[in-house]
Amino acid sequence: MRANFRLQRLFVENALHAEAAIPADADQFNYLANVLRMEDGAEVLLFNGRDGEWLARLTFPARKKIVMVAAEQTRAQTPMPDLHYLFAPLKTGRMDYMVQKAVEMGAGVLQPVMTQHVQGRITSMDRLRANIVEAAEQCGVISVPRLEAPVKLRDLTDGWDPARRLLFCDEGEETNNPLSALQAIAERHAALLIGPEGGFSEEERHWLRALPFVTAIPLGPRILRADTAAVAAMALVQATAGDWR
Amino acid sequence: MRANFRLQRLFVENALHAEAAIPADADQFNYLANVLRMEDGAEVLLFNGRDGEWLARLTFPARKKIVMVAAEQTRAQTPMPDLHYLFAPLKTGRMDYMVQKAVEMGAGVLQPVMTQHVQGRITSMDRLRANIVEAAEQCGVISVPRLEAPVKLRDLTDGWDPARRLLFCDEGEETNNPLSALQAIAERHAALLIGPEGGFSEEERHWLRALPFVTAIPLGPRILRADTAAVAAMALVQATAGDWR
Repeated sequence: MRANFRLQRLFVENALHAEAAIPADADQFNYLANVLRMEDGAEVLLFNGRDGEWLARLTFPARKKIVMVAAEQTRAQTPMPDLHYLFAPLKTGRMDYMVQKAVEMGAGVLQPVMTQHVQGRITSMDRLRANIVEAAEQCGVISVPRLEAPVKLRDLTDGWDPARRLLFCDEGEETNNPLSALQAIAERHAALLIGPEGGFSEEERHWLRALPFVTAIPLGPRILRADTAAVAAMALVQATAGDWR
Repeated sequence: MRANFRLQRLFVENALHAEAAIPADADQFNYLANVLRMEDGAEVLLFNGRDGEWLARLTFPARKKIVMVAAEQTRAQTPMPDLHYLFAPLKTGRMDYMVQKAVEMGAGVLQPVMTQHVQGRITSMDRLRANIVEAAEQCGVISVPRLEAPVKLRDLTDGWDPARRLLFCDEGEETNNPLSALQAIAERHAALLIGPEGGFSEEERHWLRALPFVTAIPLGPRILRADTAAVAAMALVQATAGDWR
């Protein structure tokens, strides 16, 4: 079922059920009362990643206080998307953007990966998490992707689950067409690894390509920025092996 | 052949051939001399969309003057990509971003289209053109996509060339999978139409779907922002019908 975009969506930690009364936190209060200027009885949609999406109505029990009361469930909980999105940190602005796109495109796990040529760094996991929640609120997903702590590329692959195919976008790939490679994948589960703006090192590329659970996929004849490659590759993976089928 | 990213790439209007001496314009002078602090003999790559890409060396014949002298051709001219990218204007920041992405993804023609729910507007075609050139310089393409004047959606389809398949991303499409629709396309030429943030109107959707040269493609179960849908859809089109094959 598609998201309802006429109503403001908010992520909450609380359990959601009929009559559940959920106090808006400071940010939510400011947004609902001061930015959107909502009043008593105004409707919002709430989700917590566990209990589906609920229509709730605002009550103002006291000054500077909003309680959101769940009325009925508007969408049932959906399972977390299976796609793992592994990315080398970018400079902050582009990384914020890329993370939002990853949520829109249906990543279930977001995993920062440190590579040899990585230029950006994770200055704040909280900022990344807030970005993920905001993207989930905006794009209508009910599940909020899990954000994993940064790992070194080598540590990531050392403990790899062979039942999950690791796809990496290889600018050095000879052919241009990613579809044949993606359609040949037998594993039902995929992880997509996007390198830093500087690309992978020769050493990383050769070593990745030698791993049995790795498939290198090309992304056409032009060099794409990391955030462009992320959306393009996720579209191809979702269409061939993911939830766009 | 892939782009060389160690050297600065510049678009010029002038003809390019061995010994061609091309004066840097004011912006180019400022960028080369003041931002990059380049000196006599420094190398850049020049392209004009007609004569391929050329290695050139800087000379400083006078104060406040740089002449770029073409040495040898580094890449032969490639034909303009065939993909037409039709987009409803977005708010300026997102539109700048989307236009850059369209160039990276290999659009040959960029065509603003006015639809019923369009929110953004083209404040400056020159700004859009400058964006296109900058994106071409950065992403290594040799051809600079053509920017067409904005047209009303109805006028666009009234004069449509039936040899080109018009693809539009339809949030109302029942299925999630765009590949089957794209792989079934017989025409060798494609145009991709991305609606405004508000989506197409019901009237527009029904009327587009009734046109014989139109194919509606879905983009998965989540609602995508227009700039996300643009990159995702171009990736699928390039992989199935474009130059990623």
